[in-house]
Amino acid sequence: KRARDYGVKIGVLPTGKHNAITDVPGVKVGHTTLVQGEQVRTGVTAIIPHEGNVFQEKVPAAVYVGNGFGKLAGTTQVQELGNLETPILLTNTLSVGTGLNAVVDYVLQQPGNEEVRSVNAVVGETNDGYLNDIRGRHVTEAHVASAIQQAKTGAVAEGNVGAGTGTVCFGFKGGIGTASRALPQNMGGYTVGVLVQTNFGGVLQLDGVPIGEELGQYYFSQKIKDSADGSCMIVVATDAPVDARNLERMAKRAMMGLAKTGGIASNGSGDYVIAFSSNAALRIPYNSPAKTETVTLLRNDEMSPLFMATIEATEEAIVNSLFKAETMQGREQQVVEALPIEKVVKILKKHHALEL
Amino acid sequence: KRARDYGVKIGVLPTGKHNAITDVPGVKVGHTTLVQGEQVRTGVTAIIPHEGNVFQEKVPAAVYVGNGFGKLAGTTQVQELGNLETPILLTNTLSVGTGLNAVVDYVLQQPGNEEVRSVNAVVGETNDGYLNDIRGRHVTEAHVASAIQQAKTGAVAEGNVGAGTGTVCFGFKGGIGTASRALPQNMGGYTVGVLVQTNFGGVLQLDGVPIGEELGQYYFSQKIKDSADGSCMIVVATDAPVDARNLERMAKRAMMGLAKTGGIASNGSGDYVIAFSSNAALRIPYNSPAKTETVTLLRNDEMSPLFMATIEATEEAIVNSLFKAETMQGREQQVVEALPIEKVVKILKKHHALEL
Amino acid sequence: KRARDYGVKIGVLPTGKHNAITDVPGVKVGHTTLVQGEQVRTGVTAIIPHEGNVFQEKVPAAVYVGNGFGKLAGTTQVQELGNLETPILLTNTLSVGTGLNAVVDYVLQQPGNEEVRSVNAVVGETNDGYLNDIRGRHVTEAHVASAIQQAKTGAVAEGNVGAGTGTVCFGFKGGIGTASRALPQNMGGYTVGVLVQTNFGGVLQLDGVPIGEELGQYYFSQKIKDSADGSCMIVVATDAPVDARNLERMAKRAMMGLAKTGGIASNGSGDYVIAFSSNAALRIPYNSPAKTETVTLLRNDEMSPLFMATIEATEEAIVNSLFKAETMQGREQQVVEALPIEKVVKILKKHHALEL
Amino acid sequence: KRARDYGVKIGVLPTGKHNAITDVPGVKVGHTTLVQGEQVRTGVTAIIPHEGNVFQEKVPAAVYVGNGFGKLAGTTQVQELGNLETPILLTNTLSVGTGLNAVVDYVLQQPGNEEVRSVNAVVGETNDGYLNDIRGRHVTEAHVASAIQQAKTGAVAEGNVGAGTGTVCFGFKGGIGTASRALPQNMGGYTVGVLVQTNFGGVLQLDGVPIGEELGQYYFSQKIKDSADGSCMIVVATDAPVDARNLERMAKRAMMGLAKTGGIASNGSGDYVIAFSSNAALRIPYNSPAKTETVTLLRNDEMSPLFMATIEATEEAIVNSLFKAETMQGREQQVVEALPIEKVVKILKKHHALEL
Repeated sequence: KRARDYGVKIGVLPTGKHNAITDVPGVKVGHTTLVQGEQVRTGVTAIIPHEGNVFQEKVPAAVYVGNGFGKLAGTTQVQELGNLETPILLTNTLSVGTGLNAVVDYVLQQPGNEEVRSVNAVVGETNDGYLNDIRGRHVTEAHVASAIQQAKTGAVAEGNVGAGTGTVCFGFKGGIGTASRALPQNMGGYTVGVLVQTNFGGVLQLDGVPIGEELGQYYFSQKIKDSADGSCMIVVATDAPVDARNLERMAKRAMMGLAKTGGIASNGSGDYVIAFSSNAALRIPYNSPAKTETVTLLRNDEMSPLFMATIEATEEAIVNSLFKAETMQGREQQVVEALPIEKVVKILKKHHALEL
Repeated sequence: KRARDYGVKIGVLPTGKHNAITDVPGVKVGHTTLVQGEQVRTGVTAIIPHEGNVFQEKVPAAVYVGNGFGKLAGTTQVQELGNLETPILLTNTLSVGTGLNAVVDYVLQQPGNEEVRSVNAVVGETNDGYLNDIRGRHVTEAHVASAIQQAKTGAVAEGNVGAGTGTVCFGFKGGIGTASRALPQNMGGYTVGVLVQTNFGGVLQLDGVPIGEELGQYYFSQKIKDSADGSCMIVVATDAPVDARNLERMAKRAMMGLAKTGGIASNGSGDYVIAFSSNAALRIPYNSPAKTETVTLLRNDEMSPLFMATIEATEEAIVNSLFKAETMQGREQQVVEALPIEKVVKILKKHHALEL
Repeated sequence: KRARDYGVKIGVLPTGKHNAITDVPGVKVGHTTLVQGEQVRTGVTAIIPHEGNVFQEKVPAAVYVGNGFGKLAGTTQVQELGNLETPILLTNTLSVGTGLNAVVDYVLQQPGNEEVRSVNAVVGETNDGYLNDIRGRHVTEAHVASAIQQAKTGAVAEGNVGAGTGTVCFGFKGGIGTASRALPQNMGGYTVGVLVQTNFGGVLQLDGVPIGEELGQYYFSQKIKDSADGSCMIVVATDAPVDARNLERMAKRAMMGLAKTGGIASNGSGDYVIAFSSNAALRIPYNSPAKTETVTLLRNDEMSPLFMATIEATEEAIVNSLFKAETMQGREQQVVEALPIEKVVKILKKHHALEL
Repeated sequence: KRARDYGVKIGVLPTGKHNAITDVPGVKVGHTTLVQGEQVRTGVTAIIPHEGNVFQEKVPAAVYVGNGFGKLAGTTQVQELGNLETPILLTNTLSVGTGLNAVVDYVLQQPGNEEVRSVNAVVGETNDGYLNDIRGRHVTEAHVASAIQQAKTGAVAEGNVGAGTGTVCFGFKGGIGTASRALPQNMGGYTVGVLVQTNFGGVLQLDGVPIGEELGQYYFSQKIKDSADGSCMIVVATDAPVDARNLERMAKRAMMGLAKTGGIASNGSGDYVIAFSSNAALRIPYNSPAKTETVTLLRNDEMSPLFMATIEATEEAIVNSLFKAETMQGREQQVVEALPIEKVVKILKKHHALEL
């Protein structure tokens, strides 16, 4: 069950239908989960911005670097040109090269891209080396292709799946999480969806409740396992008509959602946010006979509700990754326990944080 | 009384002696508070990095822009050269020019600066135009000089003082707040102090407890007054031996502390963080016969405790500004109520958030 | 006479009518020149983006920091919101505060701005302290107001005027310079205009010809006077329909034009570029009943001609400032000689760089 | 022959011994050149910062993005942590993933790195798709390993080698180029070395002489071939004791050197600068029992000579790439002519630009 099923209600805005990044029209998510033998606990997650040929119809996008101890590839072109031209790939730290190769291959092979000779693949990662034999580099290009191919709309698998298979968060088992917010019509009715790959530490708070302290498990009390190479990848999608500049501002707010879970963006935590708009009227054609594009964009003054939606959805996505992840044993028989839901629910109850 | 006096204990790290930015050795704070007639509710706050001639002995520094809807002057030179050469001044939005003139004047007049012909004054602001006749521009250079002159170590006045005299935070009376954290000796024993000028909105949380929701007063439920021109100025001081690059990283974490109070960095909120190290061994002489400087700096790997201290101290400084501010009537007889402490304490108690 | 009158033809693109920033429709320039007694050699230059109320009808804008040893105020809001809401003011280093106060005053007093309580004035500077008694701070708010008031379209006064009155460039007398480029119709027919305040050093090249070396006057051969506090302010205007992101890219190219004159962006040279689009269809209303704006923007692919125009116009504007500046004596009877035009023309001729 | 052998003398500073990036002590360069059949014209160039285990002994480093239409991987970690932990790899646009995989593999296999589970490989590229069957992705991990393995000090092969095998510059055959500057002892005696992979356009100038115009071949006169996906990768090395902040400032100046060759950083040109210091006393150990490091660093005030050296060496490195590249036929029998040296020398002579 997800956090909300237990009565955890983060923030004040309503969720979208699936409370998932896929509530943003057109956005699809696919996972390849690799659990093989005793050593391999890793995977790939693909987020596809829209159902068309993304290279031919790019989307406005931005990247914000919360803490750059990470290997996210493709950042500078997104920042320079303000757009995203491939699916976003998440995987483990040492598989970024394979991720790049596979995404490039995918784009080159797409019908209509026969003459394409430059591809800016966006591939992010966190380090699952505590549970996973990361040095073995078990992710193949086929695994990546499969994640892209299987991507679909609707509910998104969370927890120990895809790029979250082997991750650790606040000392508990982390993984993939997602959530969304749907703005009321008088604020535009837009949807903001977030997907996270959680692999970081700090002092866990759930909807403000000091779970980490109550459980006695937090940074400084007990060192977060393999703390130096954590990371949190955050993908923010919206259908709001916002350009790259305002998407960057939204991306910055995602780090504020992470902060509310008790994350501290520790030195070794590579925390990145990639934000894009799937708004169909903002697509940027690869080739165009026209020299200009006419776009309708939200004014700066209208951004605050989207900022708040981003903060709330990010916080809840992280929380969902913890609720959905399960205890896992991996490399060298090391075990990472899931969040002890029963205890946590009791603590939340005590703090009047459940609304069921 | 401050938040901690009621039993609010934010975070897991111990505070410094005064739980104030002045716990960082050498740092001094001074206020000029302007409450005149029915229209003038403004002031000036000065933070002085060390007891010497700051221009002649600059300190390593950084600026992080959380949301740049603000007028902070002096940012680019701090970022380029990695140092701060004047006191930091906080005032209202339309008095930045006067602040600059006064700080420049102060530096030019300091003994030893007779040949100085370039001064990079750092002057920040928030907009107190709801309670204050900001268009009247009542801050004078003398007010600024007075704040600098009166700056002292020890406990810091909070609430409706100095640059916080007329500010509004989460719809309640905001103001100046401060807090500090003292790292245990095994983490270096360094101190991090924070001072804030709070004038922003969102959905107030106190140590995670949803005060804004419980009181029914938050962004979206009731528009924050004069929301478009809020701002939160945050000053972070430390005696840890860190250079400009790692100070910038600390500055970024201050925004995470703001996030934990429920702030959303709304479009109109100019949120800035200025961080500096007062570590005596890191002073940068204005003139030097030597072409090099030898410095002992913390390794990146040791930064996480300082990040956490920054987050905690920022959150608590904001909370203190709310606890210490008092109901104020100002321009056009508009009134901003103080945080209703009694009610708030009850809610905190209900949520088991008091530790007295 | 300007450089082109001697046959110097920089670049391959045609100039606009006046070869000035005012070739961009709507842009106006005004100067206040202060030459008083033996000590005062300074002034103010105002660039007004369009003929309307700029605060009510903001223009897309960007700031690029070439080297941030400078005091340009107003940068972060331009960068965050992507717009400019006041005239751009240039003056000397220690008069930025006065510049801010005067521009704020101007905006507050403009009809229609009666309710305005937040103004982001953009005020830049270079250090004229070699010729000017800069510590005396002789620029008044009235001087600033006068520069704004006198601003006009058409030919722009260059050399020892306005903010360029006391500046030094490559060891010669610098000052204000301007130039423009008009793109051919098949590249959109847009105009790019540049205005510079030149106060920096390096190894002077004129249209590629090594004037500094031939004259034996350059950085390293003879230290540039008062080198530590130079600066070059560059203002780039265009009527091309480009948003803040692409304006920032244009701004970066202005530094490439500076490079072609032999400038090296030395440690002490505060080099800044402010770029804006005066395109009437891109105005951003301060208040608007609409939540969105519809804009027609150039595609990224069409930017290269504008980049080239920016580089060429910046190079020529700098060169013009040198050709038009005249020998000046100032503070402590110090003298800065004008570029020795006659010698320079001979050298240019020898290098086949004149096209008359 | 290189440019200097013809009497072209760029700038005023003396070169190092080899006039190459390898003049910086410890720096090694290796190439793998792939010229296979009629379609394959590509390769790999590796720059190794010092002779030790770079992962275990990292070097201070910075990245500056001149124009981010490119795929350089590894940027954000260098910027965040201020260091470089692998060789720098240059190759073609679609081989970045393979480059990453190979560098990661190299690091994992190095003795002493058995426990390493996170590697930030820096891999840059330009697009050689005009002459090379880039979609065929002919670079293998073995090619990369070979370039690293063959890296050596001393003279560096230039022109159609390594990552420059198939590149095009100003419409002529580009390639790899290098140059260096040795500061006089009174400026510290430091060396700055630059290596470039040239694949960009504009209006070619050689030491200021308008070669492009004289030859009638320049942007706007004749569209640069495959202009949309050019790029210029620039690597700057120095033995000066400078930290990441000042290395970033040096990196920015490299773009000024590019500007002096007539480059315009066109929309499609991914122009990046990676700068590092090989100064032995600044190495950053991967693991250290100490929490601090003591370093001796140049003061900001001493940076200008290094800036000038960077500008000069970059300009000359680009020029060398053109002088050393030879006419090449590649994909679809397309031919790119070398710079017509004989004609060029005549033009230079006419403009009095030769000093032999």
